[in-house]
Amino acid sequence: DIVDVIKAHFTENRPLEGVRIMVTAGPTREPVDPVRYITNHSSGKMGYAIAKQAQLLGAEVILISGPTHLETPNGVKRIDIVTTSDMLEAVQANMAVDVIIKAAAPSDYKPMQYQNQKIKKGSESIDMKLVKNPDILKSIVPLVKDQIVVGFAAETQNVEGYAMQKLQEKKLDFIVANDVTAEGAGFDKDTNIVTIFEANGTKSSYECLRKDVVAGIILDKVIEYLKKQQTIKE
Amino acid sequence: DIVDVIKAHFTENRPLEGVRIMVTAGPTREPVDPVRYITNHSSGKMGYAIAKQAQLLGAEVILISGPTHLETPNGVKRIDIVTTSDMLEAVQANMAVDVIIKAAAPSDYKPMQYQNQKIKKGSESIDMKLVKNPDILKSIVPLVKDQIVVGFAAETQNVEGYAMQKLQEKKLDFIVANDVTAEGAGFDKDTNIVTIFEANGTKSSYECLRKDVVAGIILDKVIEYLKKQQTIKE
Repeated sequence: DIVDVIKAHFTENRPLEGVRIMVTAGPTREPVDPVRYITNHSSGKMGYAIAKQAQLLGAEVILISGPTHLETPNGVKRIDIVTTSDMLEAVQANMAVDVIIKAAAPSDYKPMQYQNQKIKKGSESIDMKLVKNPDILKSIVPLVKDQIVVGFAAETQNVEGYAMQKLQEKKLDFIVANDVTAEGAGFDKDTNIVTIFEANGTKSSYECLRKDVVAGIILDKVIEYLKKQQTIKE
Repeated sequence: DIVDVIKAHFTENRPLEGVRIMVTAGPTREPVDPVRYITNHSSGKMGYAIAKQAQLLGAEVILISGPTHLETPNGVKRIDIVTTSDMLEAVQANMAVDVIIKAAAPSDYKPMQYQNQKIKKGSESIDMKLVKNPDILKSIVPLVKDQIVVGFAAETQNVEGYAMQKLQEKKLDFIVANDVTAEGAGFDKDTNIVTIFEANGTKSSYECLRKDVVAGIILDKVIEYLKKQQTIKE
């Protein structure tokens, strides 16, 4: 009857029903003092687009987000964080998922010392020592069991070289790479030009597409991997 | 007749008719490389509230704005800038006004060297040398003829001391000071708790008010000064 037809329709379009996905998105901020901070141009749009579509496809989605001006997609559980250390903690606390998509751009470095009071404009120059932040993807490698792990590489040069290195070092299933300096790609844009490198050696390049469409391509690949794993049935 | 009544009504409520006002707002960003930058928590809300109300009160408003997510108020001419040097240039190019309200929070320091390519995560620490940015308010002191100049001081301690020093050094007519760490005050909030210090020694403290209301108080003071100068008639 009609109920079954509708049910079938929605089931067909909900291939991620029962699948738990963690998506990270946005930049992080590393405070210098109560007023100033170091950050990057990540807008969170790519990660939010993935979270939104994954939820529409039936997944249970946790979105771990740095500061953005974007609305939380319907039905998505959002956890707000500020610094890379915060994000690391939130990621490690939410590893009970089937898929991890690391679309965030956490700051690699942070000021060694946080100043409790606003630094007054005085000396002609300031020497600021930055220290390395923990590497979130590397830190979860020992915690990964059978989760599908997807990374991103935003580069300004040698995109393929850096992406392949990250793919291997961080034991990713696949990595979505883009040159953020290319026209139509990168931060705070609604479009992106990506190449997907897979651990099995496959390389797929795409033209300039809306981030919604790129999100769909990434999730289709995730579905393919989940089927191979038999986490979801054909 | 009715047209005159309406006209009179609007004239009454347009005390800044014919007055040109420059408002600066928001943070600036100082790039480290194509991906990273240093900035601060200024949201631009205070400056945008002033620009909006000044326009409604009849002024011709130029809004020189750092990167924000705010909508340009109706009828306001907005000039977008990124760095403190950009803002300095835009301010100096728009000095042909009657009133200058410097509500922006331009970065005091910038990285000495901009890296053309994304700095790769390598060494455990990085020594970043920051150099002083030009001081916009100080730089315009020699250019000020009879413009009313209003400054802001966002501090985390010794608010009165720093505000009085800035008022004198930068030859302001008055300064709007606040402690950004106070509950209900400061960056990215819709309210503010301010004290206005005037060059003539007057000090006026206000309770926690919406930024729209604070904008009204500031513009009322501007109108008082313009009347004293006879730029606008009683």
